Amino acid sequence: MNRTQYVLDETEIPTHWYNIVADLPQRPPRPLHPRTHQPMSAEEMGSLSARELLRQDGSTERFIEVPDDIRRIYQLWRPSPLRRARALEKALGTPARIYYKYEGVSPTGSHKANTAVPQVYYNAQQGIRRLTTETGAGQWGVALAFACAQLDVTCEIWWTGISYDQKPYRKSLMDTFGATVHRSPSPITEVGRRALEADPSSFGSIGLAVSEAVEVALADENTGYALGSTAGHVLLHQTVIGQEAIAQFALAEDYPDVVISCVGGGSSLGGVGFPFLREKLAGRRDTRVVAVEPAACPALTRGRYTWDYGDMEGLTPLMKMYTVGHAFVPEPIHAGGLRYHGMSPLVSYTRHIGLVEAQARTQTDCFTAGVLFARTEGILAAPESTHGLAAAVDEAKRCADTGEEKAILVLVTGHGHFDLSAYDSYLSGTLVDPELTDEQLEKFLSHLPIIEEQQ
Amino acid sequence: MNRTQYVLDETEIPTHWYNIVADLPQRPPRPLHPRTHQPMSAEEMGSLSARELLRQDGSTERFIEVPDDIRRIYQLWRPSPLRRARALEKALGTPARIYYKYEGVSPTGSHKANTAVPQVYYNAQQGIRRLTTETGAGQWGVALAFACAQLDVTCEIWWTGISYDQKPYRKSLMDTFGATVHRSPSPITEVGRRALEADPSSFGSIGLAVSEAVEVALADENTGYALGSTAGHVLLHQTVIGQEAIAQFALAEDYPDVVISCVGGGSSLGGVGFPFLREKLAGRRDTRVVAVEPAACPALTRGRYTWDYGDMEGLTPLMKMYTVGHAFVPEPIHAGGLRYHGMSPLVSYTRHIGLVEAQARTQTDCFTAGVLFARTEGILAAPESTHGLAAAVDEAKRCADTGEEKAILVLVTGHGHFDLSAYDSYLSGTLVDPELTDEQLEKFLSHLPIIEEQQ
Repeated sequence: MNRTQYVLDETEIPTHWYNIVADLPQRPPRPLHPRTHQPMSAEEMGSLSARELLRQDGSTERFIEVPDDIRRIYQLWRPSPLRRARALEKALGTPARIYYKYEGVSPTGSHKANTAVPQVYYNAQQGIRRLTTETGAGQWGVALAFACAQLDVTCEIWWTGISYDQKPYRKSLMDTFGATVHRSPSPITEVGRRALEADPSSFGSIGLAVSEAVEVALADENTGYALGSTAGHVLLHQTVIGQEAIAQFALAEDYPDVVISCVGGGSSLGGVGFPFLREKLAGRRDTRVVAVEPAACPALTRGRYTWDYGDMEGLTPLMKMYTVGHAFVPEPIHAGGLRYHGMSPLVSYTRHIGLVEAQARTQTDCFTAGVLFARTEGILAAPESTHGLAAAVDEAKRCADTGEEKAILVLVTGHGHFDLSAYDSYLSGTLVDPELTDEQLEKFLSHLPIIEEQQ
Repeated sequence: MNRTQYVLDETEIPTHWYNIVADLPQRPPRPLHPRTHQPMSAEEMGSLSARELLRQDGSTERFIEVPDDIRRIYQLWRPSPLRRARALEKALGTPARIYYKYEGVSPTGSHKANTAVPQVYYNAQQGIRRLTTETGAGQWGVALAFACAQLDVTCEIWWTGISYDQKPYRKSLMDTFGATVHRSPSPITEVGRRALEADPSSFGSIGLAVSEAVEVALADENTGYALGSTAGHVLLHQTVIGQEAIAQFALAEDYPDVVISCVGGGSSLGGVGFPFLREKLAGRRDTRVVAVEPAACPALTRGRYTWDYGDMEGLTPLMKMYTVGHAFVPEPIHAGGLRYHGMSPLVSYTRHIGLVEAQARTQTDCFTAGVLFARTEGILAAPESTHGLAAAVDEAKRCADTGEEKAILVLVTGHGHFDLSAYDSYLSGTLVDPELTDEQLEKFLSHLPIIEEQQ
């Protein structure tokens, strides 16, 4: 029988996270203070995040060691599988070799657990006993709830209303792990109350939920704030994905010509892509890295590379990134985890200097690929993950046309067991693809802060 | 770091299924015709099941080869993980070593896929283009839908009303795999119409759904019927679980003193337990095998070992088995897959001759273990699987009291991602444990058919 699995032993869980900053031609621009627009001091940053996480954000070391206590928790699901999608290849009649790395095996069903565990660990180490966060699709919330259960920390989550309403069972999962979950906008925070006054039926946004979680964390010194995406340390922790994939491709005696991932905040792309970019930057191997975003929230393909806030209210530091503007309220597409106005500064920078390609996809296009993937490979991918699948399927179809025998790696960031109402919409033909006109986009971009370039 | 994973390569997927009949002191009683009460001929059986499956049911060979086309589909998820539950052990403060074999990694989220694939395969081989079946918790329905998608066979499913209503998203999953799903009782069948007349708000039972699926299959010669549990071939196919576990224990340089599984129809217990009983029957190793059933449906612990029908209407062959009577309508507990009046004849026979122990558990007891398992090992087990977990936790606690260093293997048959409303009930304190009085039970047993023993 043909091989389809490339299995690593638990002793091969990466011992270090990979920090791409060490290998980039320049250091990407650092965050600015939201009011003074000056580079932020460590003290200023420290009120929100654990010291070790800030140290990692500022680090230029190539490798940062993974503490044993974290690797022990990683052992609950890592190394994650790399598989050859032979049934999918056959269905597409392609000479391409399609591989997928599957993060849906984690306790929380997505790659988010990879960073939730170290974030809770470092906060707990410095005595933080409660963590707040926001969540979009709900996957980050579940991940933080799981990690807090593992390390005995209290967990409080603000969840964007649209997803909170669509996915009641993902809330039950957070409950099972012992977390407290609020629908955002919530009446608990200043920011939430203002949003509810403006629109009592608001379905929220990730930016707004960030504002709520940050407000609560800032009000209590024993409470920290954890961030599921965009931050440097988040991408750093996710590099276990790409490092494992490289070891697994060695078992397959193959190497990807192209690495594909969906992007919302950018952590999955950074996680799978940066270790491959290391090989490229060192001149050892060449690989295209492709970021796939929803057409309804096109930060990389139609946004600007400029300074912007991470949240709607301008409470977070200013970051240099691709953005459609922090005032952007995306349409309620099913890939809740990709409804974010900005993009990780690190992913933005690698895109800016040409290391990463980008494309945007409609959700119908994505679910078509998702259903094909379910019927061939048996995995029901999260709506977010179907964005990568749609791009991989197209790449493989192009190979069928040209006869090219490319090796394609696509990251499946999680399972869609709590997203079946989205599949229902697709299967029943009621799914719509919201359009974003240039005029609408321009309006959101007009609210961007005006910052004098420092450099 | 301590090891927690015992990983097999895909080349180690078992090449043969193990048939315990070859090693039993006597051949277990064979099915009788539902009307004549005479042993059934191959022709009579043939109207319902594929010929090769009937051959397997009657086989006394010790090993039956797994065709390569089936192993290729097994590769999508097998070998399944065996893990040491170190976090659970720590939480219990036990000197016991707890291992779990996890079937929730299958495309359909449970062990049912192990037999769905060969059943569809052998039916397709003899030209059957449509399969009907019933499903209780929904896991078997999803499994058959998946296998039919893999092998291009039409799939039609009758789902017990109680679970159909509780688990809308498991229906969406069957839809995604391309199956047609009916709520049982349905107005499509004679049997269903009669049940709806008697009680228009009936929440159904597995027995009733069996009757509907069988009725439709009998009416069309190109339509077959597939059975998710109880049949000999189902247990046979599930033995990949126990065989893999034995190989994985060799990697762990350990061996279980006790093997635990939940039982509904008995296929998971047979699957994990029979390969260990082979070692016991051959005198090579000794292991206790423990079946755990719900207190609300106590076939093994309070039922009779006698002849009974597999369905409510008396359409199926008569089987010698532990049963609470085919007229039994269990209370709507959350472990829908365990709400079956009978028990696989093979499991019943091994229990009858003392090879298998049995115990019954309330659902509150089970969810307590399920939540502990989720918070320690990170896996949200199906309500069915929590029955095994509850027994394993108690066994480990006894070891904490006595100081015994037992090795415990518990089978986690599937994930509970579609059962979160059940966890909700438990966490909110609204879960009830229905009581079954001796008087109620006696009433159901009074409807048992009276059969003259043949031998």
